[in-house]
Amino acid sequence: MSRQFQTITLLTDRGRADEAVGVAHSIVRDIAADTRVIDLGHEVPVHDVCSGSLMLARSAPYIVPGVVVASVDPDGSAARRSIAVEVGDGAGVLMGPDNGLLASAVAVVGGSGRCREIVSEKYRLVSPGQVCAFRDVLVPAAAHVANGLDIAELGDVVEPTTLLPSTLPMPRFENEQVISEVMWIDHYGKIQLNVDCDTLAHLGDTLILSFSGRTRTATVHRSIVDIEDGQIGLAPDVHGMLAIATPQRSAAAELSLAVGTEVVIASAR
Amino acid sequence: MSRQFQTITLLTDRGRADEAVGVAHSIVRDIAADTRVIDLGHEVPVHDVCSGSLMLARSAPYIVPGVVVASVDPDGSAARRSIAVEVGDGAGVLMGPDNGLLASAVAVVGGSGRCREIVSEKYRLVSPGQVCAFRDVLVPAAAHVANGLDIAELGDVVEPTTLLPSTLPMPRFENEQVISEVMWIDHYGKIQLNVDCDTLAHLGDTLILSFSGRTRTATVHRSIVDIEDGQIGLAPDVHGMLAIATPQRSAAAELSLAVGTEVVIASAR
Amino acid sequence: MSRQFQTITLLTDRGRADEAVGVAHSIVRDIAADTRVIDLGHEVPVHDVCSGSLMLARSAPYIVPGVVVASVDPDGSAARRSIAVEVGDGAGVLMGPDNGLLASAVAVVGGSGRCREIVSEKYRLVSPGQVCAFRDVLVPAAAHVANGLDIAELGDVVEPTTLLPSTLPMPRFENEQVISEVMWIDHYGKIQLNVDCDTLAHLGDTLILSFSGRTRTATVHRSIVDIEDGQIGLAPDVHGMLAIATPQRSAAAELSLAVGTEVVIASAR
Repeated sequence: MSRQFQTITLLTDRGRADEAVGVAHSIVRDIAADTRVIDLGHEVPVHDVCSGSLMLARSAPYIVPGVVVASVDPDGSAARRSIAVEVGDGAGVLMGPDNGLLASAVAVVGGSGRCREIVSEKYRLVSPGQVCAFRDVLVPAAAHVANGLDIAELGDVVEPTTLLPSTLPMPRFENEQVISEVMWIDHYGKIQLNVDCDTLAHLGDTLILSFSGRTRTATVHRSIVDIEDGQIGLAPDVHGMLAIATPQRSAAAELSLAVGTEVVIASAR
Repeated sequence: MSRQFQTITLLTDRGRADEAVGVAHSIVRDIAADTRVIDLGHEVPVHDVCSGSLMLARSAPYIVPGVVVASVDPDGSAARRSIAVEVGDGAGVLMGPDNGLLASAVAVVGGSGRCREIVSEKYRLVSPGQVCAFRDVLVPAAAHVANGLDIAELGDVVEPTTLLPSTLPMPRFENEQVISEVMWIDHYGKIQLNVDCDTLAHLGDTLILSFSGRTRTATVHRSIVDIEDGQIGLAPDVHGMLAIATPQRSAAAELSLAVGTEVVIASAR
Repeated sequence: MSRQFQTITLLTDRGRADEAVGVAHSIVRDIAADTRVIDLGHEVPVHDVCSGSLMLARSAPYIVPGVVVASVDPDGSAARRSIAVEVGDGAGVLMGPDNGLLASAVAVVGGSGRCREIVSEKYRLVSPGQVCAFRDVLVPAAAHVANGLDIAELGDVVEPTTLLPSTLPMPRFENEQVISEVMWIDHYGKIQLNVDCDTLAHLGDTLILSFSGRTRTATVHRSIVDIEDGQIGLAPDVHGMLAIATPQRSAAAELSLAVGTEVVIASAR
């Protein structure tokens, strides 16, 4: 059942201002010296499980086989149980808190296989104070699993059906309108909605966006590069989701839109 | 005397906005290709030796054996001598400026062994302008030592007793009060004080905190997760130091407390 | 013609807030498992080709031989052709958009050898939506070239003379004055100008700086550490360029100077 993994990928809300992430690299280097550690990112907004879950799901198709450790917790504590979920018929293991953070990524890669709670004292670090789930539980467990430890050694069986599901918002359809939500603002200010282009095909090429008491007209394009200067456009982003974009400027700044805002989309016809 | 090291760990105040840290990785890759470089952190507040020293000391128990390069200098210059300090009976070498930055970490890992000033031109890079101690002196020296160079080759013997000591603030005890100081605000806003829990045991479980002309009551808990919503609590943090915390919110924002602020702790009895 | 490279160095304006850079590391790990990936930096100001170009040129003398991927685009799109430029007689390959980003670095390392457009579908990733030049074109191509793929396999020959040149500003000389420009503000607030010290030698040791309608006197020093407290000085920085500095404080904050500002330098005699 057991196999070795060459890579551990980390996703957290811990930031890089202090040493938390560097210490995680050091712990892996100590336990599993030859394992590569990849920082998927550490700037998930603090305690924001939904943003972390989205980031992990967007990345899932690109993450190299191995162990993934995700750590974002609404209360920043070790109160929630830590779990290890096998995916891809054993090609990878995702570890994190049982708070829905892993759920979407697990679905993207084909659903969960075996699942364990991480409780064995044998594979934990002893804290000089409060237990830090990331440093003391998840990271050492990941390093041992990378070394070939079977996840069955980590703790008791968890029924995948008992795991907290993802809380990602789904679009709703009312009358002729689509009620969507801003999922993500990318580094360039493009606004990702929780709909793909096919979902809106029946509404035509000119759409009315309503949000925060305002209304804007936007045209649908096959590519973001086709949006003209000074225009607001809708086009598939690099993940295949629909994004609101404005050429060479931040659409999020232009429209004062933030993650979580509801955007009602209607046809201009 | 000499041995090879597999890992170089970096801690600086150089940030990641420019190429300084990336260049350091490249220099190591060039001189010591197989050595892993771990970024403990590069966001030490600019010129803040005390914060850097604390970060290094907190991390010390977790840093994998090898070479550690720390670079934080109050005047950002190469004016101060660069030193290499052997620790753990040769299991590791700490390098940095002789300004107290290394002192606490050296103490945490058991004190200094041999110590040298890093002066040999042979193991430096030639700068096209001003010498940059981090890029031209510390990083290349670390790479050569990782390759097996004995620190004796770097320069003259330095008596450990002549090194600048740490300037970390110690708590004071006056009458029935403890005069503490904010050491660190973590990424989640928990406020670390320079006292551990045992130090306050004689004051009881309900304490009066006085700071910046204000007074707040706080209860002492065994764990941060036991602090109730809306309450201010004191509990051991993940480093075993006493921290002021508020559940799911930033205590530092809530109390407007910053690093260096004096916090007087008295019993509520 | 072909050879393997051990290191891929990345420079982008993508930031680390989301997963773009982590995904790039994962893609390389998947295609070219043993290749080291070094982050030269990802905080180039968004769309700022000039800043990215400068950062790459400053770093060029220190970058370990291998493949360099640079990605900064004024419109953040894949509209511009992606190119691979051989340098150092095959010792390295630079990849990026044909928008002048690579030009200065190519010049620093001795000029371009063979040059190809990166178009082969065989070495691209298929995007679920919009093509992302960095993720889908540049990074996979770099990984394949690291594995030993000859750049001739990537696409058609590009004549180096047809590449967009660098747009770095050059100083001008008018009467007895030098019209310079702020090139870079470093992490400590030192202000790098686009002149070296020899250029100003004929003006003497006390200079008048005029910028933004203001005038300040500055003395020229051989080293930044020689500038006295409370003084504004000019001295060679760690790259051998002339920098305006103030001891232990940010000169950029002190003088309210930003990148791109014109600074007229005249003799005080």
